[in-house]
Parts: sequence; structure tokens; C-alpha cells
Amino acid sequence: MTPPKGGSSSRGRAGGARGRSPQSRPLASRGRANPASSNGRVGARRQPSDRRVVREREGLGGDQVEGRQAVAELLAAGRRPVRSLWLAEGQDPSPQLDEIEELARRRRVRIERVSRNRLEAAAATEAPQGVLARARAIESVDLAEVLAVEDPFVLVVAGVTDPRNLGALLRSAECAGVDTVVLARHRTVHLSPTAVKTAAGSIEYLNFCEVGGIPAALATLASGGCHVVGLASEATTSLYDVDLTRGGVALVVGAEDKGLAPLARKRCDVVAAIPQHGTLSSLNVGIAGALACFEVARQRGQQ
Amino acid sequence: MTPPKGGSSSRGRAGGARGRSPQSRPLASRGRANPASSNGRVGARRQPSDRRVVREREGLGGDQVEGRQAVAELLAAGRRPVRSLWLAEGQDPSPQLDEIEELARRRRVRIERVSRNRLEAAAATEAPQGVLARARAIESVDLAEVLAVEDPFVLVVAGVTDPRNLGALLRSAECAGVDTVVLARHRTVHLSPTAVKTAAGSIEYLNFCEVGGIPAALATLASGGCHVVGLASEATTSLYDVDLTRGGVALVVGAEDKGLAPLARKRCDVVAAIPQHGTLSSLNVGIAGALACFEVARQRGQQ
Repeated sequence: MTPPKGGSSSRGRAGGARGRSPQSRPLASRGRANPASSNGRVGARRQPSDRRVVREREGLGGDQVEGRQAVAELLAAGRRPVRSLWLAEGQDPSPQLDEIEELARRRRVRIERVSRNRLEAAAATEAPQGVLARARAIESVDLAEVLAVEDPFVLVVAGVTDPRNLGALLRSAECAGVDTVVLARHRTVHLSPTAVKTAAGSIEYLNFCEVGGIPAALATLASGGCHVVGLASEATTSLYDVDLTRGGVALVVGAEDKGLAPLARKRCDVVAAIPQHGTLSSLNVGIAGALACFEVARQRGQQ
Repeated sequence: MTPPKGGSSSRGRAGGARGRSPQSRPLASRGRANPASSNGRVGARRQPSDRRVVREREGLGGDQVEGRQAVAELLAAGRRPVRSLWLAEGQDPSPQLDEIEELARRRRVRIERVSRNRLEAAAATEAPQGVLARARAIESVDLAEVLAVEDPFVLVVAGVTDPRNLGALLRSAECAGVDTVVLARHRTVHLSPTAVKTAAGSIEYLNFCEVGGIPAALATLASGGCHVVGLASEATTSLYDVDLTRGGVALVVGAEDKGLAPLARKRCDVVAAIPQHGTLSSLNVGIAGALACFEVARQRGQQ
């Protein structure tokens, strides 16, 4: 596979030949204003800390965006206001930096040149690649809005605690055509700077729905017509034997260590595994989730 | 998906109900002695450096093993002699540490308790988790041996340069049932400590074949009856439309930035893409490779 990180997405934007435009995801611009995310957390943002932050507060996050691809997509998608854009001084020229500057000009976002030390002190990720933006936090959509779409494709993240795993999962989910990601308010990592950087811009094209409890959300999704499919490595049903083409699908992915919680599992129409063929049977949660998302896409594509 | 990292693989070993035992991979114990890997690199090992090491020397690597799961699987598989095993002093008790100690006793590997500082100074990865082993390097098998297996399932890594991407790819490949991984001697990362740690023990159950040139290796695999399938995101053929069930399969994965080199591409029977459905079309190379490996497994499983 050839995934030129900045390149292919830029081509996608310019040519529009492949994939949907940001505007075509129906819920993207319909997020409701979220007072907590637009006001309350500005102060906290100055001292980011991102080591397996398990969120016990309001707001989805996503307000601090680091890394070249994540910032380029923030600007390209244009879905949320960008409050500041820092570029470190003294960087070698690169096509991706040129792209960021061009997108910033087009979006009328002022570029501030800061010292590398200052940028890295403000950064929460290990390698911000000389680029740091602050934007309006990602806003939550309602479950009712999620269900208003025809044949929704929903990924329910029920307990992932490692921001890299969450970010990788979001990146794959977006490529597979997931519309909306449901995140639990508690016991799941939020859109921290590390998750956002690893997600490589995909959060700009996904809708997010924050819920208080996963079991209740699954019940709502099921009653709204979604086929609720839990993933569990010990399940005896193969995911390949589950018909994922009937209307909407909600895939439910559990925690790295404990998998699906019993109450969430009870709310699934079916719990399935991806058959393993090795001596080890310990797929990373991000890979397992990616395989499941692409299995939905594969089955839907063959209809 | 529920991937309890140490747990599920331990269950696999103990119960043997699922997956193959290490011994059942036919090539595993047939590796030829490789003088370069068992002598020449011992000195170099003391000062490891692991930042996108693109190898221009002999030997596959794999000699320095860090991290709890990687070390537990090194001991459990018992495929190669372990020269030393360091455990950092003052660690909190954990089931995985207990397992490592028990496996070391069973394998008659002496445990050396060293200070955390000394271990971390010798470690090449960011988080060795208080465990560092040195073992005989991974030995290369011949292409002829690869082809002697019935219906071989081969992953050809043609240019991946990030050790984390390589490690993640190996972990997924092992779970999908890949027998042998072909690595180029040049311009591909080798089994560096970071790759080995990320691979989470999977290298103990895979065969590795080091080749001087990828195009010549692909020609040999094709003439030996393998269906040689290249992955390229811009290909117009869908991987789902390729019949992957006819005899042996060699999947070819290119570099992160440039994809498949032209000469390698020419040697493929078919070049295919995993269809993308998002705005971004930039799957990580490790994910793309994992999806392709599991598509082979899915098709083979439905025969």
C-alpha cells in the first residue's frame, strides 16, 4: 500500500475524484454549540498533559492540534474556527509546510512564528513537527442526528484508554467510511493532542457523539435501526459470517485490557471475532477495529 | 476486540486449542547458522541506536529483545538461545513478570537483577518495561525453503523504514497466519529493538528470509507457484476482487512514502488496492498490510 501521508489526502482534496468532500458528511456542520468546550477549558489548555488521560470532565477535546498532517487537515476541512497557528522558526522547507501556509492564507488564519523551544514547551505530543494550532473543540452531535442519516455507519469506542490506539482507530475508521464515532464521557480517552496527532486529520471529517453511558446509547442505536455488532476476540461467531449490509451498523470496540464490559455486551445484537490464524492471538485494538470497519465497507461495497 | 496482551497468548500456549504451536511452523527450526549474526554484531549491540535504522549490513537483527510481551514470547517459543536476561530491580509485582520468571526457570535462563538505570541505559526503546534480553539473532531461511511448504503465505516487506510500522505489521501478519516474511537487505528497517518490541513476540513464530533484491525474490516466488500480489493505494483493481485462494500467496508491501518501487511492481502478478471510503485516503502502511493479510486469511477460510 502506498500511503503518502500528506500527498494522497491533498490529491483527494484537489481532485475530488475519490472520497467525499468534507461538506458531504451530513452531520459535520450541524454540531450544537457546547459551552464547556468553547469556554471552560481554555485555561487548562496551556498546560497540556497527555499520558493516557482518562477524561472525567466535559468536552470531547480536539482543541490542540499538533503535527503537520493534522494541522493541514484542520485548515483544509475548515469545519471549526482556528484560534491560533504557530510555526516553529528555522524549519527546513517542505511541501507540507508550504501547503499549511497556503491553506492558512486561504482561511485567513494568521501564522505566528515562534521559537522551536516555545512551541515544544506548549506541545503535548513528542514530535509536534514544528506546527501547533488551537481550534474550537470538537462538538458533540446528538444520537438522534446520528440516526437521521440513511444507513449510518457508527463506531462505538467503549473504553479505549491509549490515545495512540484511539487516534489510529479513528484514522482507519475514516478511511473505511465511518460517519460517526460514539465516545463515552468516562473511562475512555478523549481527543487529546496525542490522539489528534495520531488520527492524522481524520477527526475533521468524522462526527463525534459523546454519551454518558454506552449501554443506553447502544439501546438507542438498536431501536433506531442499527445492527449493533460487538467485537470480542473470544467470541465464537466469525465477523465474516455476520451480515453487515442490512441498514445501519454500529460496531462496538472495547478496552485494550478488558474488552467489552458486560452491560455493553448485553446490548449488542451479536458479538463476533475476527478469526485468528497465528500462535499469538493478540491483535492490537486499533488493528482489530480497523479490520472490522473495513469488513463493513467490504460487505457494503459488494451489494 | 479483546486483546489481553500477555493473557491471550499464554492461553494459546497452555491450552493449545487455538493457533499452531511454535514447532508446527515447518521452517522455524531449520534456519541455517549465520556467522554474521552470531558473532560480528555483538559489540555493536552495547550501544544500540534505533531511530529509523536503515540497515546496510549483514544480519536480520532481533538479538536485543525489550518489553514484557516480547521477552515472554522469546522464552515461551524457545526457538533461539537466550544469552542474558535482565530484570530491573524494584518493579511492582505483575502476572507478566511472574510468567517471565517461570519461563526463564523452565528454559534454564539465568535472571540477572540490575538497576533500573543500568537497564534503561542499555535499552534502545523508550519503554523497555524493566525487561531486556539478548538472544541469538534471527536467522534467515532460504527462498527454496519458503517454497517447500504447501501453499505458503508470504509477506514481502519492500521498503518499510519505520521500525514501529514494521513491528506492527509483523504482529498483525502473524495473527493472520503468515508463514514467512521476506525482508530486503537494504533500504528496509531490520529487526531493531523497537521493531521487535512493537512486534510483541510475533517474530518468534515467523520465519524470516533476507534477500539481496526484492524483484529477483518476487520472480523466484512466482516461479515457485506463489501468486504475487502488490499493494498500492492508487491501483484500480480492488484486492477484494483478487482470488487469493489459489496455492501460495506473496503479498508485497512498499515503503511508507514511495510505495512499491517500479521494478518490484513489474514482478507482481497483480497490483491491487484496498478500497477507501473516506475523505482522507492515507491508511498507515501497517494497517494496509494488516488488512491485506487478513483478506488472504478470510478468503482461505471460506474455501
